[in-house]
Amino acid sequence: MADAERVTAAVMIIGDEILSGRTQDTNLNFIARYLGTYGVDVAEARVVGDIAEEIIAALNHLRARYDYVITTGGIGPTHDDITADCVAAAFGVALEEHPDILALMRDRWGEEPNPARRRMARVPVGGSLVRNPVQGPPGFQIGNVFVLAGVPQIMRGMMDDVGPRLRTGKVVIARTVRVEGIGESVMAAPLEALARAHKTLSMGSYPFFSQDGFGANLVIRGRDAAEVETAVGELLEALAPLGARSVRRVEA
Amino acid sequence: MADAERVTAAVMIIGDEILSGRTQDTNLNFIARYLGTYGVDVAEARVVGDIAEEIIAALNHLRARYDYVITTGGIGPTHDDITADCVAAAFGVALEEHPDILALMRDRWGEEPNPARRRMARVPVGGSLVRNPVQGPPGFQIGNVFVLAGVPQIMRGMMDDVGPRLRTGKVVIARTVRVEGIGESVMAAPLEALARAHKTLSMGSYPFFSQDGFGANLVIRGRDAAEVETAVGELLEALAPLGARSVRRVEA
Repeated sequence: MADAERVTAAVMIIGDEILSGRTQDTNLNFIARYLGTYGVDVAEARVVGDIAEEIIAALNHLRARYDYVITTGGIGPTHDDITADCVAAAFGVALEEHPDILALMRDRWGEEPNPARRRMARVPVGGSLVRNPVQGPPGFQIGNVFVLAGVPQIMRGMMDDVGPRLRTGKVVIARTVRVEGIGESVMAAPLEALARAHKTLSMGSYPFFSQDGFGANLVIRGRDAAEVETAVGELLEALAPLGARSVRRVEA
Repeated sequence: MADAERVTAAVMIIGDEILSGRTQDTNLNFIARYLGTYGVDVAEARVVGDIAEEIIAALNHLRARYDYVITTGGIGPTHDDITADCVAAAFGVALEEHPDILALMRDRWGEEPNPARRRMARVPVGGSLVRNPVQGPPGFQIGNVFVLAGVPQIMRGMMDDVGPRLRTGKVVIARTVRVEGIGESVMAAPLEALARAHKTLSMGSYPFFSQDGFGANLVIRGRDAAEVETAVGELLEALAPLGARSVRRVEA
């Protein structure tokens, strides 16, 4: 889907627990859908462990390449929470305790935060805070990088303070045609012809197999609603003679 | 967790549908757990879209860096299935129709495969097949790269032909201590001291918040079972005076 006005983002999931399989990541999926509503495309995602050099290298690569980077994970109070340190190192700036976070902590607990909690008050110099409406200290933004919590409920809450800061793109419209009773290989030629005829659209085919039968969801995506609709019409026409048990537009 | 004998892998999830948020990936989690049983650590994961240059660049980076790379997605019959082409390009070899796959197809359908199906018979020269016990054509291996289907049920079946081909490492043992009623910040100092005392182990803290209360799962991981047990004992001792409502070993 070529588009000069495309706004892009990368997602960096930070944490050994994702790579070990202990935890199933759901943050990428949420962020991708959320950014989609702002017309921002997730162009790449990486999962990296709790290793400073890896985090710094990946972050520097991604922030130079995409309009935005969103990281999740590694901002808690324990020794394996090194994301803030790595972001500061990537930007070549110091990490300082942010007075607003210290004030929030004193306010909440009614006492001076201990050293572990103070770790969570550290923000790279030049960063601004990302509001945490759920639990615990804020995230932060520095340059085009947003640093969010890894716990999904908290990350989701923080995204509401990220969205309004983004340069928005034109929202991608996706339309799905569900075809049952014929295989992808039967639809491949007409789908490819359609893709060639509509270079600004992207077309995907996602097969399914169930007890009730098999088939594929054909998805047409693009930023021009009229062209997407035209292509869906042409697709339905091209599928008509192929002998499917059912061809219909569906929501997802 | 420093270890000279560590065997590493990277996972590459290929597909626009993951980056758009249409599909929640579960392949990384399955592969990470599966490889764990062979003592192989997933050291990094990437999600890339259906763009040839991106796939080729990521694959060449990862296969040079880790012992193994496992890719999922993009090996179906439609125009957006470009993984085999990209793997061949990354290795600088041609893509040829594999006679065993063509034979499987003729056998299954009792007819000559159409051009879309023939796409799925293409394997980079020098590659060997990865058995697909579920549905459709095989995956393949070339060098240290395994190319598997994206559909989770099929990918999972294929992994059973991947595991036995791997150089195995020493399996990582993970032990979890669940602590309720005190926050991570209270446990951070003893956990860090323990991590410093056991450099070959990795220690993670994963907070939880529920209606019933809050706390953290503290996870100690390592390849030496005796040292892991020693560290768990020391951890329980260090946690005893902290006033938790409950401290206990749990399965996950």
